[in-house]
Amino acid sequence: MRNDVEVILVGDELLRGERSDAHLVFLSRATRRIGARVRRAHVVGDDVASIAALVAERLPLTRALVLTGGLGPTDDDVTREGVAEAIGLPLEFSEDAWQSIVHFMESRGREASDTNRRQAYFPRGAAVLPNSVGTAAGFRVDVSDCAVFVLPGPPMELRPMVDAHVLPAMDSIFGRPPVRVEMFRTNGITESQLFELLAPDTTRLEHHTVSWLPTLGGVDVVLTQRTGAEPARLDAECEHIHGRLSELIGNRYYERGDRPISRVTGELLAARGETVAVAESLTGGSIARYFTDHAGSSAHFLAGAVTYSNQSKTDLLGVRAETIDAFGAVSEETCTEMAHGIRRRAKATWGIATTGIAGPAGGTPHKPVGLTFIGVAWEGGVQVKRMILPGDRATVRTRASHTAIWLLYDQLRRRG
Amino acid sequence: MRNDVEVILVGDELLRGERSDAHLVFLSRATRRIGARVRRAHVVGDDVASIAALVAERLPLTRALVLTGGLGPTDDDVTREGVAEAIGLPLEFSEDAWQSIVHFMESRGREASDTNRRQAYFPRGAAVLPNSVGTAAGFRVDVSDCAVFVLPGPPMELRPMVDAHVLPAMDSIFGRPPVRVEMFRTNGITESQLFELLAPDTTRLEHHTVSWLPTLGGVDVVLTQRTGAEPARLDAECEHIHGRLSELIGNRYYERGDRPISRVTGELLAARGETVAVAESLTGGSIARYFTDHAGSSAHFLAGAVTYSNQSKTDLLGVRAETIDAFGAVSEETCTEMAHGIRRRAKATWGIATTGIAGPAGGTPHKPVGLTFIGVAWEGGVQVKRMILPGDRATVRTRASHTAIWLLYDQLRRRG
Repeated sequence: MRNDVEVILVGDELLRGERSDAHLVFLSRATRRIGARVRRAHVVGDDVASIAALVAERLPLTRALVLTGGLGPTDDDVTREGVAEAIGLPLEFSEDAWQSIVHFMESRGREASDTNRRQAYFPRGAAVLPNSVGTAAGFRVDVSDCAVFVLPGPPMELRPMVDAHVLPAMDSIFGRPPVRVEMFRTNGITESQLFELLAPDTTRLEHHTVSWLPTLGGVDVVLTQRTGAEPARLDAECEHIHGRLSELIGNRYYERGDRPISRVTGELLAARGETVAVAESLTGGSIARYFTDHAGSSAHFLAGAVTYSNQSKTDLLGVRAETIDAFGAVSEETCTEMAHGIRRRAKATWGIATTGIAGPAGGTPHKPVGLTFIGVAWEGGVQVKRMILPGDRATVRTRASHTAIWLLYDQLRRRG
Repeated sequence: MRNDVEVILVGDELLRGERSDAHLVFLSRATRRIGARVRRAHVVGDDVASIAALVAERLPLTRALVLTGGLGPTDDDVTREGVAEAIGLPLEFSEDAWQSIVHFMESRGREASDTNRRQAYFPRGAAVLPNSVGTAAGFRVDVSDCAVFVLPGPPMELRPMVDAHVLPAMDSIFGRPPVRVEMFRTNGITESQLFELLAPDTTRLEHHTVSWLPTLGGVDVVLTQRTGAEPARLDAECEHIHGRLSELIGNRYYERGDRPISRVTGELLAARGETVAVAESLTGGSIARYFTDHAGSSAHFLAGAVTYSNQSKTDLLGVRAETIDAFGAVSEETCTEMAHGIRRRAKATWGIATTGIAGPAGGTPHKPVGLTFIGVAWEGGVQVKRMILPGDRATVRTRASHTAIWLLYDQLRRRG
């Protein structure tokens, strides 16, 4: 049986460690929407022979093949040559595609050059997929009953092309309802603890497979439709897991769906007409960035202060110099004053604060690397949590950010 | 000829769009250090038969094969079973590995459970690779003259195992000097503009291949050693490109190496004994986070303010309400006052400010989505740049952050 879809990511930079892939997540999610699944993905370098061999190998094994990257204007971009070789068709100049490139460059006040001319060549008989935001058009060719889609690398260019051209084409190939996947997100519980609590229920599911995905933000449980059972039966199984999670772990289960904790918490604040402000030392702006990642966040996110120096903790937040002198910048007392300080200065309903030692240097026996205080303050109260977070600098900062936002979520639910 | 190294990333979540891979970058860079190169990578789901088939297919084609993921305690973790099937050896219980798991759990104040017991099984004859920060030990087996390394998925667990066990083993397989790769980073110039300027030089290189890597932060030019020429000749070619870039684009070429602009600029500040503070609206904490990603940043990064509301621009930065009323929050005038305001309040040498319309909503005919003002202020002066940045919300924010930091870098170099 042939696979639905396979993806080939082209680029030496992916195999040399200079870039991480940005496409597989997007393509996998898009593909599920038209009822098909990506079953394999491959990463290959910018080399005509390697690309050609891989494409030729996969053609008989999959019904759709998506290649990304290597359509740029420079001489390391050889995906079009690789595909042409695999399918045994010559590259031909397309006057239409060339005119599109000329017009695109003109609209930017520049002139198309010989360098861009390469981008107007496509395998004979290929359908050109226009690119509205760049010079690299994509193309589609059909060989051995496999639809091959070749797309440019920059995500800004690839994504609209997938929506406009690839998905409608795949929909007419597969013509299936979407693959149903449901995610249940948790914070503050380990993968094996969660598994032990929930496995008695998940192992009895008839229509779903279950995945357990630990991350720095918590563990996600994912149910993927396994059978073609009617929607009501699929719904019932998801509903059962939802209910069990609420019973078993309460607020540590914070989302049914794929919203991150920053968005769940932001929307909860917005629904209550409440606001938050953030004072960050350890997390250095991460929490503010998570909140403001989402359009509309200006309704509930008022302000953040990244107070690295002691002076700025005093100047921007009103933390008393005596508090820092007596207890240190990394202490429950300083954290408390930071959370209250930002809340008052920004006139917000809630204040969040973080202070800690992200490392790798700066630890002492009494205050080791990873020591973290996270505070949530409200009118008349404050909760400060002390933790020692494992991992490197980036890990400590990410964990602390997620935990801080979850702590506000937990307080919001308790004080609903 | 067999490939040096191939990587197999195991996980349904990677093919369903719930996670992006975090390992290939790390493994590729690590592998280069011992003179070997990752030539192919594969992504496959959590399915015993698929894993077994893929491993069996690749064994004769590569000298080292690294698998990551699927060694956890839950029942969707089946990599060990897949590898055992591929090599035709049964899984056997290891009392030693089990005792390590028991001790690890005890050290965390917990008890090892039956769930963890699965993690003590390994293919007969495999060498167990201990995991110092988790319960999932890895293992190595040698089959058909291919060394197969199987490692757990969490980056915190995998990375120390690669350094401690995989690299020394690969070094004794390959025994080569590192693959030399040099990166040259630029900002504010397009891929095709840069290519047209520099191609007369790069096409004449004898000992390096060249890649052109456009990103939201700018275009990187990467020279990878192609021949075994002596170091002095490799150096000479890199030195030539370095010189040409400086002549051709000046400060737009900001780094020879792989430091991001935030680190280059931070180290330049530190060397001059100067400091920076940041006022962010559009970028919502990103710039602060980029600066504080680096250990030691507290020496030059004093403070950041994320001022989303107009009120907070006034309260935290001292922007005059009349300025916002007359020109709007997204204006050159407000940006100027933000940059000066944070600089004065944080008592920093330099102030950076951003304000703009990240979208997708909030644009008007006069102030479209993407409109961005970026300011850099110093004692007695300010530079404000107006741009219209293309792309979605995340793209606009990322581009604006990199440009803002580069603008400070440029001023630092001009006022050296």
